[in-house]
Amino acid sequence: MRATLTAPTKEGTAAVATVAIDRRRVVIGRPDGTVAAFSFVWLRHNCPCAACRHPSGQRLVDLLDIPDDIAPGSACIAGDGALEIAWPPDGHVSRYDAAWLAARSLDPAARAARRPRPLLWGAELATRIPRADWAAMCAAPEAEVRALQALVDYGFLIISGVPATSGMVVEVGDRIGHVRVTNYGRYFDVRSVPNPTNLAFTAAALGVHTDNPYRDPTPGLQLLHCLEADAPGGDTILVDGFKAAEDLRDQDPTAFSLLAWLPLDFRFADGEADLATRVPVISTDNEGRITAVHFNNRSMGALDAPEEMVEPWYAAYRKFAALLRRPEAELTLRLAPGDLMVMNNIRTLHGRTEFDINAGRRHLQGCYVDLDGIESRLKVLSRGASRPGAIAEIERMFARRGAESYGEGVSQLEHALQAAALAEQEDKPAAQIVAALLHDIGHLLHDLPEDIADEGVDTRHESLASAWLSQHFGPEVSEPVRLHVAAKRYLCHADSGYFDRLSEASKLSLRLQGGSMTADEAAGFAREPFRAEAIDVRRWDDEAKIVGAATPGLDHFRPLVESLLRR
Amino acid sequence: MRATLTAPTKEGTAAVATVAIDRRRVVIGRPDGTVAAFSFVWLRHNCPCAACRHPSGQRLVDLLDIPDDIAPGSACIAGDGALEIAWPPDGHVSRYDAAWLAARSLDPAARAARRPRPLLWGAELATRIPRADWAAMCAAPEAEVRALQALVDYGFLIISGVPATSGMVVEVGDRIGHVRVTNYGRYFDVRSVPNPTNLAFTAAALGVHTDNPYRDPTPGLQLLHCLEADAPGGDTILVDGFKAAEDLRDQDPTAFSLLAWLPLDFRFADGEADLATRVPVISTDNEGRITAVHFNNRSMGALDAPEEMVEPWYAAYRKFAALLRRPEAELTLRLAPGDLMVMNNIRTLHGRTEFDINAGRRHLQGCYVDLDGIESRLKVLSRGASRPGAIAEIERMFARRGAESYGEGVSQLEHALQAAALAEQEDKPAAQIVAALLHDIGHLLHDLPEDIADEGVDTRHESLASAWLSQHFGPEVSEPVRLHVAAKRYLCHADSGYFDRLSEASKLSLRLQGGSMTADEAAGFAREPFRAEAIDVRRWDDEAKIVGAATPGLDHFRPLVESLLRR
Repeated sequence: MRATLTAPTKEGTAAVATVAIDRRRVVIGRPDGTVAAFSFVWLRHNCPCAACRHPSGQRLVDLLDIPDDIAPGSACIAGDGALEIAWPPDGHVSRYDAAWLAARSLDPAARAARRPRPLLWGAELATRIPRADWAAMCAAPEAEVRALQALVDYGFLIISGVPATSGMVVEVGDRIGHVRVTNYGRYFDVRSVPNPTNLAFTAAALGVHTDNPYRDPTPGLQLLHCLEADAPGGDTILVDGFKAAEDLRDQDPTAFSLLAWLPLDFRFADGEADLATRVPVISTDNEGRITAVHFNNRSMGALDAPEEMVEPWYAAYRKFAALLRRPEAELTLRLAPGDLMVMNNIRTLHGRTEFDINAGRRHLQGCYVDLDGIESRLKVLSRGASRPGAIAEIERMFARRGAESYGEGVSQLEHALQAAALAEQEDKPAAQIVAALLHDIGHLLHDLPEDIADEGVDTRHESLASAWLSQHFGPEVSEPVRLHVAAKRYLCHADSGYFDRLSEASKLSLRLQGGSMTADEAAGFAREPFRAEAIDVRRWDDEAKIVGAATPGLDHFRPLVESLLRR
Repeated sequence: MRATLTAPTKEGTAAVATVAIDRRRVVIGRPDGTVAAFSFVWLRHNCPCAACRHPSGQRLVDLLDIPDDIAPGSACIAGDGALEIAWPPDGHVSRYDAAWLAARSLDPAARAARRPRPLLWGAELATRIPRADWAAMCAAPEAEVRALQALVDYGFLIISGVPATSGMVVEVGDRIGHVRVTNYGRYFDVRSVPNPTNLAFTAAALGVHTDNPYRDPTPGLQLLHCLEADAPGGDTILVDGFKAAEDLRDQDPTAFSLLAWLPLDFRFADGEADLATRVPVISTDNEGRITAVHFNNRSMGALDAPEEMVEPWYAAYRKFAALLRRPEAELTLRLAPGDLMVMNNIRTLHGRTEFDINAGRRHLQGCYVDLDGIESRLKVLSRGASRPGAIAEIERMFARRGAESYGEGVSQLEHALQAAALAEQEDKPAAQIVAALLHDIGHLLHDLPEDIADEGVDTRHESLASAWLSQHFGPEVSEPVRLHVAAKRYLCHADSGYFDRLSEASKLSLRLQGGSMTADEAAGFAREPFRAEAIDVRRWDDEAKIVGAATPGLDHFRPLVESLLRR
């Protein structure tokens, strides 16, 4: 077993600096002091070499061909910071790039950062409804990426300017995914017709619901295209089912778990179809994350459960229904001809107000599209030019968590904008301004509260941030961010007055971060290529805590961010 | 509160005979002494009247309009055995037919009887592979119903005689459901092509797998249509994933629950798509029933789980993979041109042996279809029509051979009628009564004398009978019959006094049937979904040997038989 120490390389913080064996795991240490452990069998089974992975990315190695007592013959660090393992009996060599390992790290924060994090909303979203323009989406991939990302984040999107002609809804559907043919055909009309078999075709008000919960699988995306809307009334009501479910979990965890545990039967029957499912009102994954909501008063059946659970379930369902009906949960909007609404049908509930079919016309066309096509298209559009994806992600992080408290009276967004504005005032290069803007993005990437330092936890936000940044920017952005906490520890060592000038919160977090550097550590820091930039970022960080300071907005810095993104 | 007793009516055992209030529930008693309880809120919310249900079957009453302290003003029994409740404040009357209540009964047995019970299989199914003929399916709804029911029961079906022309696969797909367009288009070709991006297009052997686990939702049905099959090799291998999962649960419940708990990432990327999901290898519902299996070595990603769970998960996955590879789990068959295989893609794994593309041609076309369309079509096809053919055939069999001796002093017909009468006296469901009536129909189907056991020949009458019955009835009739001999061998193992109570003739035939079960065989029997029903049939079989006992005639059971016939 060899283990060699190498200098940090362009891979930055992700590089492997030490390697050790602990029980049946390989433990790697990184230059920033973080460690990550990977089981032998996991490493062997996930070997990314050409013999174990087809060029198409498909796995060739078969677990049953790997002995269950597999163990490395040797584990070394390559010059570029990769981990290299030779396996018995034939000396097969697996090479794991540092970035490859970092992207699959199994520590709780890294795993949490990889999970979807929907942006929850209520009536307050009325001032910033996710909208896109159809012509712009067709003209520029960036516009389409922004639109689809908003759909992923918020669970719905209004596309304007879609020609109000019959059948256009499936053209849009086939562009963003694949239209799913159902018992209603490739698309369906929503308007008053004689002898309705489905309440959606009458002029009555419709309570908020998800569509077709009686289908298994339930349609993932619903598109509704407004062709005519003369009739008074018939406004659209949207409710975030995930938000209501999270509120229920907060207010009454027992009710939440009952709805997530007991399935409900849904059914729809007409001349051509007789469709039935059994699914909980709230679906969760094994980590408790909400994955789907099925809510439809019209097609729900009689609860089929142990009799003793009927009353508690009804009490829980009643609470959830009431949360979905709160005025502050309802987003009301009016679709105009040419508007096309896309909804995540297992998250966003929709309904409509009553309308008078005698006073005007109302005609929508709808279709269903598979949900996973959206994320696929987003990834494909974001290939090569990673720009639109990263920009959107940064905007999303600030939209979602920028209002959270940084501490000391300012929000995360205010702190970021103040730091960037300070850098800009000093006429620093773009990379410095962007590093200042994004230096605390690690706090937005993980799910721990910012005042976590009070609880004795060092969140290592600078490592998280630089790992994410190095995917999208060069080291001139990611390295100063990675080092901005080390810079604080360095300044405590090198500048006798620095510690006294720190805020109380910053003095507290310093202890968790390791306190003042030793002379040896300071010598190491002084060899870092981006030490000066890191000290600058640190300075702005310390100053960007002025309550109520005026700064440019996030949009102001967008061109700078864009100019530095890797292509 | 009134409660009146009425005489049983044509509703038979389901009729309401007594009504009482117990806490916040209405408790009904039936003529057979069974009781059923329904919560007030459940009853009010499920009121089937025209004001509460739209003619289309959709619910109109809204839970939030029902007070949470709802309680009946009165509860009575109508002359026809229905339950009638008047509700405050306006005296709204809900009327629940006895049959309506019976179909929604919440006791454990009634609930279990409503759940799907797949027929699990292994290599032994080779002698009775579910097959259908395309022309026959198109000509007669009965043939299509039989074919689709077999697909539901076994998780796959071979349809022969589908014209071996390109594109026919989607014609079949659109007949039995709706073809689902994916990143591969409406249909795809499976044959060797240059520069493959997917292993399915090479000539290599393919381990058994489910398709597209990286799609969310995963395609439910896969169709594969054989157009050419000259090349040596390329045989199809099928494995019942539900059977392997049940075996894993038996052998190692901890491994089973780990695979059902931790999700695995799957991914597929090419020029047009980048699809990813996170789903457990085994999916279960809240009652522990297996609902899906996702297994694909090629597209599985690196396990993304707490590091401490990686080794145990791998050990569990290894066990499951080994169970899927057992020779006794593998059904090998060769598709000929014109054969079209339909598979439940979240249950039945498929693979193929290697083939030599230089020695001949091999060309399949495939498509995906939503799974729920099959059950919908089955229900729609079964509406209305009855099946005089099967009824006539049963009557003919008894007319021709019913007078033959069963042995022990009774005739075949007497034995059948006594068994059915015993089941009826115990108020068993119709399927049980019919299974009792027809359990020995295998003796009427073959031409060997009943005392054949004296000559040392086991006629396997139970296999003959269930094969015939499964053409006309669901598994709730055919499976108890198939298992009624196994039940005897099981009882000899499980019930120490059972053997001594057997008649001498039955003791003799037991030897031919294999004697008492071993512990392993008994464990296998205990996993059969219809084991309890089979033991019941066995019991009646053992008792239905009373010389001269009075029973109803065959006509008495005719409506029951008719009600259970597949349509």
